[in-house]
Amino acid sequence: MAIRVTVWGENVHERENKVVAGIYPNGMHAAIADALNTDAEVTATTVTLQDPEHGLTAAKLAETDVLIWWGHAAHGDVADAVVDRVCDAVWSGMGAIFLHSAHFAKPFKRLMGAPCNLSWREAGERERIWLTSRNHPIAAGLPDHFELENEEMYGEPFGVPEPMETVFVSWFQGGEVFRSGLTYKRGAGSVFYFRPGHETYPTYHNAHVQRVILNAVKWAHNPAARLADASAAPNVPVERALEPITERGPRLHHDGEEGFR
Amino acid sequence: MAIRVTVWGENVHERENKVVAGIYPNGMHAAIADALNTDAEVTATTVTLQDPEHGLTAAKLAETDVLIWWGHAAHGDVADAVVDRVCDAVWSGMGAIFLHSAHFAKPFKRLMGAPCNLSWREAGERERIWLTSRNHPIAAGLPDHFELENEEMYGEPFGVPEPMETVFVSWFQGGEVFRSGLTYKRGAGSVFYFRPGHETYPTYHNAHVQRVILNAVKWAHNPAARLADASAAPNVPVERALEPITERGPRLHHDGEEGFR
Amino acid sequence: MAIRVTVWGENVHERENKVVAGIYPNGMHAAIADALNTDAEVTATTVTLQDPEHGLTAAKLAETDVLIWWGHAAHGDVADAVVDRVCDAVWSGMGAIFLHSAHFAKPFKRLMGAPCNLSWREAGERERIWLTSRNHPIAAGLPDHFELENEEMYGEPFGVPEPMETVFVSWFQGGEVFRSGLTYKRGAGSVFYFRPGHETYPTYHNAHVQRVILNAVKWAHNPAARLADASAAPNVPVERALEPITERGPRLHHDGEEGFR
Amino acid sequence: MAIRVTVWGENVHERENKVVAGIYPNGMHAAIADALNTDAEVTATTVTLQDPEHGLTAAKLAETDVLIWWGHAAHGDVADAVVDRVCDAVWSGMGAIFLHSAHFAKPFKRLMGAPCNLSWREAGERERIWLTSRNHPIAAGLPDHFELENEEMYGEPFGVPEPMETVFVSWFQGGEVFRSGLTYKRGAGSVFYFRPGHETYPTYHNAHVQRVILNAVKWAHNPAARLADASAAPNVPVERALEPITERGPRLHHDGEEGFR
Repeated sequence: MAIRVTVWGENVHERENKVVAGIYPNGMHAAIADALNTDAEVTATTVTLQDPEHGLTAAKLAETDVLIWWGHAAHGDVADAVVDRVCDAVWSGMGAIFLHSAHFAKPFKRLMGAPCNLSWREAGERERIWLTSRNHPIAAGLPDHFELENEEMYGEPFGVPEPMETVFVSWFQGGEVFRSGLTYKRGAGSVFYFRPGHETYPTYHNAHVQRVILNAVKWAHNPAARLADASAAPNVPVERALEPITERGPRLHHDGEEGFR
Repeated sequence: MAIRVTVWGENVHERENKVVAGIYPNGMHAAIADALNTDAEVTATTVTLQDPEHGLTAAKLAETDVLIWWGHAAHGDVADAVVDRVCDAVWSGMGAIFLHSAHFAKPFKRLMGAPCNLSWREAGERERIWLTSRNHPIAAGLPDHFELENEEMYGEPFGVPEPMETVFVSWFQGGEVFRSGLTYKRGAGSVFYFRPGHETYPTYHNAHVQRVILNAVKWAHNPAARLADASAAPNVPVERALEPITERGPRLHHDGEEGFR
Repeated sequence: MAIRVTVWGENVHERENKVVAGIYPNGMHAAIADALNTDAEVTATTVTLQDPEHGLTAAKLAETDVLIWWGHAAHGDVADAVVDRVCDAVWSGMGAIFLHSAHFAKPFKRLMGAPCNLSWREAGERERIWLTSRNHPIAAGLPDHFELENEEMYGEPFGVPEPMETVFVSWFQGGEVFRSGLTYKRGAGSVFYFRPGHETYPTYHNAHVQRVILNAVKWAHNPAARLADASAAPNVPVERALEPITERGPRLHHDGEEGFR
Repeated sequence: MAIRVTVWGENVHERENKVVAGIYPNGMHAAIADALNTDAEVTATTVTLQDPEHGLTAAKLAETDVLIWWGHAAHGDVADAVVDRVCDAVWSGMGAIFLHSAHFAKPFKRLMGAPCNLSWREAGERERIWLTSRNHPIAAGLPDHFELENEEMYGEPFGVPEPMETVFVSWFQGGEVFRSGLTYKRGAGSVFYFRPGHETYPTYHNAHVQRVILNAVKWAHNPAARLADASAAPNVPVERALEPITERGPRLHHDGEEGFR
């Protein structure tokens, strides 16, 4: 069965800014999904901020293997209940890919537990993306480096936790560097952050960028069944202990009582 | 100057349960602080949930080098504004140590970005804590293993992110294991989780446990000045780029504009 | 195309010890390969220490996607040239799985850069293997824990580098714990260490153990082309720099000269 | 007591090349040691390749808290017995700092278990070193970035294992990036790799570079007693098991027998 990808688009710049609309007439989310759908192993659909529940109902998340998130101007408009739902889906095993300005998206910050800040400059400068983890599946089919002639600069220090792996590091014409491809695991879910994709440049039409996203979808996809309750904290009573033990000392909880949260 | 430690105690069981009050007549927080204060390099004070702003005012956090957190029955009573303040202090460079049932404390879950769940059993069984990272500063002066004759069991899978380092792993009499000493970095702050410390046992009177906490305080303490704004995302204008560049292509932002959040 | 697995067996105990020969009449390597060959996606063959070049010729390694290694009594008999060749293959992208007493195998120690030591006891005690990384592909289809009724004990501290991921931790009846499933990357190659498999017990006939090894083969397999030269350190002359630069200052090397090694 | 640092210098270029001798009349090792000795908490001495046993006798290593290594032209001349001794000292708890071209030094490659390769260019181009781990002790007192006007370029992919932490990433004028400050732990010893220091430029006279090395010395220093035998693999007999167990099943080893290596 194909990997079911949901591309979440904020869909604000595309509707309000002529430059962005010119590059992505159907929205950035559509461009990303269209590129993914050229691969037979993937079926990508799109939802946007403007959809009811931002398109991320429990039902939609249940049938999403990998969620891709692009947001920028309206991070604050994302309902906290949806953020909770997305995090819970990741913890249960859904893959998640956060693109570019989604470094400040609520679900990304929540999953990282860190400020996720950086320095930035919008000057259409050259970015060169270097591979730092040879033969990483997210870099499959890519050269050791590739260039984006016009991109927004993001600069270190990038306020994220130490990643599991650093896959890409970017060079910028104006003198900065940035860890632009980072892997994490949160609960049962795999998470990838990928830097490029400023809305005023045609980044998501770039074949290398499209390939990274496709590779990341396959890397983040976990065919295992989603956990039923990612936050379950089951009590194991004495009589069901795996090794025979006898209860000793005082207890706070009664038999069968739930733990505190 | 001594390391300034603030021990945050939920202070509920100590007041409501005779067993706990018998072991910790002044509260668990006081026992932890008292043990720390025997070391000349540390000055520990205590605050509790019941204090105004739970004792964690901006002023108190500003003069806290390392925060220790014990909570269990009243995680939900901790105000979100205080949680935000604590996370921000960690991101700015404050050290943080979370003990035992604080795995479900709001600031710990927020800093981890993960469910932080586990299995558990309250049977007073034996726990044996094994060192897994030789000569780690948090294990200074400790043997390769030590025992707590009566502890609550916590079992894997523990729903936390891969740590920077696994320092301790626990063996339980009833057949479980648990990664009981884990290091993380979040923003500029160092974070340590340490498992032992169920309220109905005299765990914080144990010399080995006290030593781990003292070591962890020294490990988590960062003498560098706290960051002024841990989430700052400064714009670097073209004319202040470190390498001369010329602006190219369309822009979304105007000069001097703040980025979106 | 199927994943090509080579199972390397030391093949000493099987020939010299009746107990081992009784459990593994064709050798442990054959038992491991037979189990893998029940999966349509894998083709496993075996080689042994006694083969010319221990069976690990350049040609054999070139057509090996994942190498599995079991050794114990004759670590010192493995020729250094073969160790070099194995490490180079891993660095070029070959997957490698080291089982049980291979913690002291020359190629494992070489790849880890660490002493890889541990404590041990041969008492046929119970081992219980706990999952620590939910939904990890190496644990696909496995429960949160499973037992081996008779195993050799390996105890912490285990002298290996911090892993990329801790997948399993073992509980032992005699009171020890052990990080028994660990992932690493070395050069372009993925490496997995898996603890169980003492020669005098039927561990490799256990369905859960077989499943872990099969999963690990799929995890360690990288379909990307092997690197031509995993240690290449290419000079990039000034005239081929990606950004125009002018040579400045004194040089030690002449044009086209090789770097020092 | 002061931290005892031994700076190991290859001491070849300084004697054979006038440019290098001009910059470092007493050798690079002396320049590094002199800078360290301005700090009251450190006592640095030097040894060179040309000394008996390259200056790294068992006695010298026993009184070395942190070893600093610079080598380039004569990696192959370092005796394997000395490499073994150095690795063993690190595993026992000695700190180690490898500078610049020491990425190909025998002990570094041995400790990494990886090819440690990179691309390079000797053009005196600008390097800008960015902090990627805020408030890391190795970056104490340093700005978020600093520049070296003339340096050799080292480019990714850098063939090292995923580090525990990435502390610095370098930008190069010619278009490359490099992870130039990386932390590792091997056995009980802390290891830091720091990129700058090409012999034909005055890098080790740079105050920022000197500060990084000083910070790294303090970070790598572990006051705990050195392990007596970093590779010990002790047998724990049944009768000394921490939990009472009865021996079951067949054994390969006799009581008191050494394990295989």
